[in-house]
Amino acid sequence: MKKRIHTPEGVRDIFAKECDKKRYLERRIERLYRSYGYQSIETPSFEFFDVFASEVGTTPSTELYKFFDRDGHTLVLRPDFTPSIARAVSMYFNDEDMPLRLCYHGNVFRNNHSYQGRLKENTEMGVEYFNDDSPEADAEVIALVASTMRRAGLTDYIVSVGHVDFFQALAEDAGLDEDSVSELKGLLSSQNRFGAEEMIDRMKISDELKQAFKEMPALFGDVQILEKAKTLTSGTKAVEAIARLETIYELLKIYGCADHVAFDLGMVTEYSYYTGIIFQAYSYGSGDALIRGGRYNRLLQHFGKKADAVGFVTDIGTLLNALDRQNVPLPIDDIKTMILYPEEIEKEIIGFAAEERQKGMDAACVRFEYGKVLDNYKEYGRRNQFGGILYFRSLKEAYAINLITGETSRIQPF
Amino acid sequence: MKKRIHTPEGVRDIFAKECDKKRYLERRIERLYRSYGYQSIETPSFEFFDVFASEVGTTPSTELYKFFDRDGHTLVLRPDFTPSIARAVSMYFNDEDMPLRLCYHGNVFRNNHSYQGRLKENTEMGVEYFNDDSPEADAEVIALVASTMRRAGLTDYIVSVGHVDFFQALAEDAGLDEDSVSELKGLLSSQNRFGAEEMIDRMKISDELKQAFKEMPALFGDVQILEKAKTLTSGTKAVEAIARLETIYELLKIYGCADHVAFDLGMVTEYSYYTGIIFQAYSYGSGDALIRGGRYNRLLQHFGKKADAVGFVTDIGTLLNALDRQNVPLPIDDIKTMILYPEEIEKEIIGFAAEERQKGMDAACVRFEYGKVLDNYKEYGRRNQFGGILYFRSLKEAYAINLITGETSRIQPF
Repeated sequence: MKKRIHTPEGVRDIFAKECDKKRYLERRIERLYRSYGYQSIETPSFEFFDVFASEVGTTPSTELYKFFDRDGHTLVLRPDFTPSIARAVSMYFNDEDMPLRLCYHGNVFRNNHSYQGRLKENTEMGVEYFNDDSPEADAEVIALVASTMRRAGLTDYIVSVGHVDFFQALAEDAGLDEDSVSELKGLLSSQNRFGAEEMIDRMKISDELKQAFKEMPALFGDVQILEKAKTLTSGTKAVEAIARLETIYELLKIYGCADHVAFDLGMVTEYSYYTGIIFQAYSYGSGDALIRGGRYNRLLQHFGKKADAVGFVTDIGTLLNALDRQNVPLPIDDIKTMILYPEEIEKEIIGFAAEERQKGMDAACVRFEYGKVLDNYKEYGRRNQFGGILYFRSLKEAYAINLITGETSRIQPF
Repeated sequence: MKKRIHTPEGVRDIFAKECDKKRYLERRIERLYRSYGYQSIETPSFEFFDVFASEVGTTPSTELYKFFDRDGHTLVLRPDFTPSIARAVSMYFNDEDMPLRLCYHGNVFRNNHSYQGRLKENTEMGVEYFNDDSPEADAEVIALVASTMRRAGLTDYIVSVGHVDFFQALAEDAGLDEDSVSELKGLLSSQNRFGAEEMIDRMKISDELKQAFKEMPALFGDVQILEKAKTLTSGTKAVEAIARLETIYELLKIYGCADHVAFDLGMVTEYSYYTGIIFQAYSYGSGDALIRGGRYNRLLQHFGKKADAVGFVTDIGTLLNALDRQNVPLPIDDIKTMILYPEEIEKEIIGFAAEERQKGMDAACVRFEYGKVLDNYKEYGRRNQFGGILYFRSLKEAYAINLITGETSRIQPF
């Protein structure tokens, strides 16, 4: 007999109650997305490298799992759904110019360093809404983010919303070159405030702009923050971004989720494909965003289609962890029934089990083996997610045993 | 704008109605497996190479997708679930010696040659039943195969059942060495009857055994064939195999699926892990097996656990193709509703849509754009799986348009 083989670092098995919880949550979220008219799409687990190349991708090339096909092309395990769906939409919906709503569900793969403590395979679900550049589309998608959080069972959550044009406008006003933009973004997104301030002080720009850059990280809060942001810049692009956020906010009030929305004009993203609003959803018990998304009106051009788009991704594992830490119960009950029987009445039991399954019971037939006692089966049932036992001692004597309460009652067999 | 990027050869996107059908079928099958008390398990998409090494695997090493982790270990995209689940059971259920029923659902990857015309990524669902070496366990699993076919909507299908010991017993009687066994298996499993006969004629064995080997491929049919098989050999192992099949057949009669079962003692498998019954399910419209499985009592030893096991895998893509070719309808209706409205009444519409979703409607809000006419929206609806339109001309005037019948009726708004 060989020694045990483990799973590779950063990936894992999911089974028993945890797996039931995951599947329950996934069903619930898929139902939500479908209720908004989103259609399901599945893309391959791997694609040509070009689909995730740096100009479109969200993941550095060093964190992609790469391998070769038989013809020597580089294939990549998808690190993210959005580029794949953009590619698919460019192929199959190239002529569609009216609103297109798609939702997806599957696993993504990122070969991150193990010291980052993140999993390398994660389940993601999300939506992508194409061909609609309106604030209404932005609002629908943000409302769907809030609904995802609520539908999962969270009550204490926040969706923070920013806009890439706010930082972009300041950077243009300051005449920053691409490298400086990227360096400053990096400092701001990693919350390295000291480093950011140092860099800002070094820049040869007006004191007013320096002040604006420095105040960016503090531009977080309720809708009032938009007023404050207006005082920091008079650039058209920044003003338009703020006006858009105000319009979206009014719509979110109608959706009834405005209370859970915060604005964050200091939010910057290193993902190069975003062109408008960007947002993230948080709850306590998790430092990581449970949902991330934004508008990306230029990504599809990379694949040969002109189409506006906005969407988000829900990280199922992070969401399940948050639910766990907050003790949010998911209705995953032990509902399976063990039909326990002695070998002599096997034929009758097989027929009985089939009938009960027809009526909706989840039932596993288990033979009472010589040498075992009833307690062995009770323990076995408890460690294998059974809710109860229908114990037939014979065709004439049967008991119902509730494994949760421990109660036993005699029942009429068949 | 860049040129279009396609999917790599052998993998594909699934969307629109096809995706809905796939998901419907998957749900139905998962429900079936759960109704027999099987618990869901998910394993990682990739594992260490050892999990799929040749002594346990079903896929030649040249057809595995391989890549390296950061420490230089070889990782493999799973070509098959069974070894992964065997590994997981050896880890988490090492002390469990009572019946353990697990089911799985996910994608597998085989880097086959494109001239074989097979997809390289496929969705598979199946069950694995551990710690029970009884004919009852075999029968339950075969009954579940038949139920899978029936539940999918097939009426004309056959589950052919064989036993590895029948060929094995003849091979032992004939004193064949490992290479000859493997060569003859190859010839028989590829239905190369001429090549097989030539090889058999060359072998230095009794005429009786030659005859038995030659008749193997014809040992296919209903339960009568077991009688015929008995006349070909008197070896204990072969006789025991036949007796086991007879016992299973009696049980399958109780399950009510014996009519769909055929015995095939000429069935051989190149998968080295099978130790008992082997079976495959077919329907017309597909030359490939839709379901394949068998008993594998030694596989778990490779991972450090002694456990008997029997299980099978359903190839979802092949099953969907068979349903398509046989025109078996799946109840995938266009049930989405388009709520079409002019911008002025947006607030009311957002509220209305939310209420309708609460009541169970799948509804997408679509703004009536200037320059479009109603027919544009009807066409748009039809090409995007909408079943109907609720068209609000104003808060006072609304119509229900059935996109399937084309019928329009005036309705009371809100």
